[in-house]
Amino acid sequence: MNKIPVGVLGATGMVGQRYIYLLKDHPWFEVTYVAASPRSAGKKYKDAVESRWLIGSDIPSGVADLMVEDASNIEAALGKCKFVFSALEMGKDEIKALEAGYAAKNIPVVSNASANRWTDDVPMLIPEINPDHVSVIAEQKKHHGWDKGFVAVKPNCSLQSYMAPIFALTQKGYPIKRMIVTTMQATSGAGYPGVPSFDMIDNIVPYIGGEEEKTETEVLKILGKVEGGKIVNAQGPLVSAHCNRVPVIDGHTACVSLEFDLPDDKKPSLEQIEKIWTEFSAYPQEAKLPSAPEHAIVVRHEENRPQPRRDRENGKGMAVTIGRLRKCRVFDIRFVALSHNTKRGAAMGGILNAELLKAKGFFDNL
Amino acid sequence: MNKIPVGVLGATGMVGQRYIYLLKDHPWFEVTYVAASPRSAGKKYKDAVESRWLIGSDIPSGVADLMVEDASNIEAALGKCKFVFSALEMGKDEIKALEAGYAAKNIPVVSNASANRWTDDVPMLIPEINPDHVSVIAEQKKHHGWDKGFVAVKPNCSLQSYMAPIFALTQKGYPIKRMIVTTMQATSGAGYPGVPSFDMIDNIVPYIGGEEEKTETEVLKILGKVEGGKIVNAQGPLVSAHCNRVPVIDGHTACVSLEFDLPDDKKPSLEQIEKIWTEFSAYPQEAKLPSAPEHAIVVRHEENRPQPRRDRENGKGMAVTIGRLRKCRVFDIRFVALSHNTKRGAAMGGILNAELLKAKGFFDNL
Amino acid sequence: MNKIPVGVLGATGMVGQRYIYLLKDHPWFEVTYVAASPRSAGKKYKDAVESRWLIGSDIPSGVADLMVEDASNIEAALGKCKFVFSALEMGKDEIKALEAGYAAKNIPVVSNASANRWTDDVPMLIPEINPDHVSVIAEQKKHHGWDKGFVAVKPNCSLQSYMAPIFALTQKGYPIKRMIVTTMQATSGAGYPGVPSFDMIDNIVPYIGGEEEKTETEVLKILGKVEGGKIVNAQGPLVSAHCNRVPVIDGHTACVSLEFDLPDDKKPSLEQIEKIWTEFSAYPQEAKLPSAPEHAIVVRHEENRPQPRRDRENGKGMAVTIGRLRKCRVFDIRFVALSHNTKRGAAMGGILNAELLKAKGFFDNL
Amino acid sequence: MNKIPVGVLGATGMVGQRYIYLLKDHPWFEVTYVAASPRSAGKKYKDAVESRWLIGSDIPSGVADLMVEDASNIEAALGKCKFVFSALEMGKDEIKALEAGYAAKNIPVVSNASANRWTDDVPMLIPEINPDHVSVIAEQKKHHGWDKGFVAVKPNCSLQSYMAPIFALTQKGYPIKRMIVTTMQATSGAGYPGVPSFDMIDNIVPYIGGEEEKTETEVLKILGKVEGGKIVNAQGPLVSAHCNRVPVIDGHTACVSLEFDLPDDKKPSLEQIEKIWTEFSAYPQEAKLPSAPEHAIVVRHEENRPQPRRDRENGKGMAVTIGRLRKCRVFDIRFVALSHNTKRGAAMGGILNAELLKAKGFFDNL
Repeated sequence: MNKIPVGVLGATGMVGQRYIYLLKDHPWFEVTYVAASPRSAGKKYKDAVESRWLIGSDIPSGVADLMVEDASNIEAALGKCKFVFSALEMGKDEIKALEAGYAAKNIPVVSNASANRWTDDVPMLIPEINPDHVSVIAEQKKHHGWDKGFVAVKPNCSLQSYMAPIFALTQKGYPIKRMIVTTMQATSGAGYPGVPSFDMIDNIVPYIGGEEEKTETEVLKILGKVEGGKIVNAQGPLVSAHCNRVPVIDGHTACVSLEFDLPDDKKPSLEQIEKIWTEFSAYPQEAKLPSAPEHAIVVRHEENRPQPRRDRENGKGMAVTIGRLRKCRVFDIRFVALSHNTKRGAAMGGILNAELLKAKGFFDNL
Repeated sequence: MNKIPVGVLGATGMVGQRYIYLLKDHPWFEVTYVAASPRSAGKKYKDAVESRWLIGSDIPSGVADLMVEDASNIEAALGKCKFVFSALEMGKDEIKALEAGYAAKNIPVVSNASANRWTDDVPMLIPEINPDHVSVIAEQKKHHGWDKGFVAVKPNCSLQSYMAPIFALTQKGYPIKRMIVTTMQATSGAGYPGVPSFDMIDNIVPYIGGEEEKTETEVLKILGKVEGGKIVNAQGPLVSAHCNRVPVIDGHTACVSLEFDLPDDKKPSLEQIEKIWTEFSAYPQEAKLPSAPEHAIVVRHEENRPQPRRDRENGKGMAVTIGRLRKCRVFDIRFVALSHNTKRGAAMGGILNAELLKAKGFFDNL
Repeated sequence: MNKIPVGVLGATGMVGQRYIYLLKDHPWFEVTYVAASPRSAGKKYKDAVESRWLIGSDIPSGVADLMVEDASNIEAALGKCKFVFSALEMGKDEIKALEAGYAAKNIPVVSNASANRWTDDVPMLIPEINPDHVSVIAEQKKHHGWDKGFVAVKPNCSLQSYMAPIFALTQKGYPIKRMIVTTMQATSGAGYPGVPSFDMIDNIVPYIGGEEEKTETEVLKILGKVEGGKIVNAQGPLVSAHCNRVPVIDGHTACVSLEFDLPDDKKPSLEQIEKIWTEFSAYPQEAKLPSAPEHAIVVRHEENRPQPRRDRENGKGMAVTIGRLRKCRVFDIRFVALSHNTKRGAAMGGILNAELLKAKGFFDNL
Repeated sequence: MNKIPVGVLGATGMVGQRYIYLLKDHPWFEVTYVAASPRSAGKKYKDAVESRWLIGSDIPSGVADLMVEDASNIEAALGKCKFVFSALEMGKDEIKALEAGYAAKNIPVVSNASANRWTDDVPMLIPEINPDHVSVIAEQKKHHGWDKGFVAVKPNCSLQSYMAPIFALTQKGYPIKRMIVTTMQATSGAGYPGVPSFDMIDNIVPYIGGEEEKTETEVLKILGKVEGGKIVNAQGPLVSAHCNRVPVIDGHTACVSLEFDLPDDKKPSLEQIEKIWTEFSAYPQEAKLPSAPEHAIVVRHEENRPQPRRDRENGKGMAVTIGRLRKCRVFDIRFVALSHNTKRGAAMGGILNAELLKAKGFFDNL
């Protein structure tokens, strides 16, 4: 199979770099186009990035010599790539306009940015949870008068560790009424230079701008239903989130207490819950999407796990790892959940979305 | 005033060292006796500690040349000190027996250990909250047939950051029904060598053995009432705790969501709560105990505070610092609370307990 | 004694904040004027700094409400302060011009910046080493036609840990021929936001821009002699420096191997060296300058000291701590030296310079 | 090819775990025997290790259910494995006796321990440097009267980063006269629990017991010559080492200044040196040993590299990475060198040694 040529917008930033690194040997996609701010435009990628290459030792050789284009010059992308990953770091309105610009030129956009997350005909995808949400793309195209282009997004990284677990329970007849979540998030989530080391040595910071709101509300769209070509948000669960920054490179950890929306005698036992999580398998696993983990949820039994450095790479960085499942003294159950924020939570999650879209035919005939 | 000569049991361990460091210039007490395991006995303190002195640069000169005694040889303490601080690190039963042994010899024990926390005639003191619990000492003496000796304890360090805040609210007519707490605790809480660096570089550990149970249950004794010479535990609040170890030297941080045990129209506003906390003052402040902070609770308004390294020294390490007070989407309010675990939470908290006991006359005529 | 009113230029940056913090209770000086970039000008100091106050818990109350002036508007300083500490963060040429501007207006400048370090009539002071260099100020004033204003500077922070030790040896007849130094420097040396946490978690960075050159060359001016109203650099020692950034908040550590410029039979023994260091005392000690440490050099004998967190506060953060003095297999001796980079190495070093200038009469009749 | 069954002595410790992890998919060797202290003996490997499995997420499935034997019971190994990797953690004399015991039973020992490093008929191997040293094994067998068994060792981890570079220069006619080295070593080098986190948060420790001596002397044996069936140490270079522990998980960094043992006009230029390093290839590369890196030395040109987290995995963790090659102001050249201490410097280095021995026929007919 010929690989599909793809572009990366915001290619010099930390998430952009991860797209390039993770797509190095991808079986379906090949990076042929890189775009960034005007400051980088006109330089070879390796010169634009220079000593700020952050991931692994070397820039993949196929990309190092690509000329960086100005991301706002959409014409430059035509003929060079079939679709783009957007890791743009700008104001929301600019991103929204730019992503629409690419879509209008028949270049689909698989975005990491939050700009389009609340548009009701833009799917916010976690392929294990809501692969059917891709159906709203038809309405999106129609509404904008776009032919082949469209925008699909992924949610915030901070909720990835508990979304699949709560979806798996909901799907099996155990809906969640409310949950209180405290996250301990890795610094890579803030990009580069991101969090100053002065704040992360002998310290934590109990605040991440905008993160709690995203975590609390995005859950409802992800669990929503498609009606009339649009996504209608779910009614619950109600989420309260405390988001903290801790001195960890990669891997967001969440301490979760939750209450089921069921009478006591209908609530699942810890054994039932563990069984549901262990057996959880969904579209990406069944369709054998290249970036899908074999097991989307991994349950550990050691008393001191999951830990970011030891468990973040489970399932090639795409699995959620859960531990310390136990009764909660206030709600029904509590547990610790971990997800790799720059793999599942960012670039590799975006790639899985693209694989879903490819498998569903959205990249045919581009 | 002549200073009272005091002893430190477990003087070579991390908490013992802190007692010695913090008592260096104490206006009421003076360390004249140090005891530890048989391995250290017979050595000068500075030789027993050697290169394992952990706090500040130097061992206080008054203690460096004291001969270390075997802590289990109670006779050695007679005539050398009037009461002892216990920072023993042994099995619970051994500690319990040894502390009773000192008490039986008319040497009161102000203990940091958990061995006696659940004895109902042993007060578990936070002087801002339950100074009246000292009255059970009379019953304790009677029960054991002790003359002047007794045991008083302090609670676990992990709950110090939110105990004063919830007590202050309860006291003003706003009792708490239930709360979900996630702590991010400093490594000094585990003593030395304590937590391996392999676990604390690019990592957190979502588990601290025994800590969640202590946090959840000690609250009820601290808030209890004295009845018939014994402490009867309070009925609430119901607490669910997630305790995590993070790469911070000193300072335990807690993310708290709580629900009041009141009808909605009786619940306090955020402004009322902040006022209660800011104005909170109790016995240690009124009696001007030397180690008492001027303000037991400090409220900050920056969006990213409290932080351990910046706020742990507030009130000489004895104040609780609170920030991010806001509405909770699931319960009523949520906030972040910070307390210095080795000052308020350990040695300096023990010293404040001794100051309370001194002020109440329990060290008279020893 | 009435305190001298002083200003701080660059008052909102990390070094500027430290000046303000450290001058809080200074017996001779009082901050009455704060200046920074135009962006901060016109705001109260506390509003200009906001949540970026980095040191301790609170902004000193005497400064919090001062109006921040534009540092380039020198007129604003007239009548508000007698001299200024410069912690400006701008281009070298701008700083040079601005510092000259203040001097021309009869406002002496005690500077932390590197802009004027290589001007031969500007003294680069370490008061224990070259207090006599202040005599070049007369030539400096004459050359510029300044009346009471002048500029005095302090050297780079990375050499502070070994300058006093090598000066003490040189002074006692044991000159150094050459030395190879590897530093492990704290992140606070890079200001705020400074070094990204992404670079300082599970990592070190073996490079600090410009630092090795400064370390290698400033030594010669500091050890220089005053001739004809100017400083003539010393001929040696020859220094090779490897400068590294490590995950430490405060405290620069240096591993030093050095060779004496003497025949073997004239070289000092380890005992002689230790005696020289332990007994070292100089002008700041004799004149009892308020910020001078009682002992400028502290020698420790534990095999694993000095360590940044344990030893940086020695002598109120103004002493150099040395350990592991031993024979070198390649040169003559080797040792580890530690100095607090933001106290001795920056703001408090600047304050000690001002104290020297005050004691020598340079602030009289301003 | 059938895989050779191998054993791991000290299998439950950190280095032992790494052997097991790294041998998981080895093309030539297969772990069939695990031995440790009596405490672990009789348990399944997974039960002996429990929650102390330190590397990656899971114990390799082929080893998890192996029964752990008592390492001192050599009989238990007979028939279960052909040779053993020794990662024993005991007293030197015990290790020496135990390794000899295995050899006497026809079980060769490829050891990580330092016990036998100074025996002159035991080769201390770095396969890129001294593969010919295996020839002393004949003398060793003869001397002990062993038939097929023998002991081969690897050197200390702290010198791995600069040994290949200085050997490559020496080999090309540029011998080194002397060098001053400062290392910044990862905590994994101390095993588990190893270095307390209290020492590695906001701190470094300028001392590692015994490390400087090993670094300084082992160089001479590695570069030695075989004469009369024994290794005769090289005469130089003379090394002075400062060894420091820093908060890094894996990867030892060394700052090196060195002087050639040549007249000035015969010394190599920086370009020549870089060429020698870049082109360096040796027996493991030519024989394509499975664990050999394609390039044993990697030279980087960014001003701030190598860095442990970014460069330690070069060449699958088996390459040395060098950066900042430049003139030294005191000696001839200086540079920064990095090596993965638990891969090249420990278990994977041991595996490469075994591959060398296999390729040279030392495991034939066992």
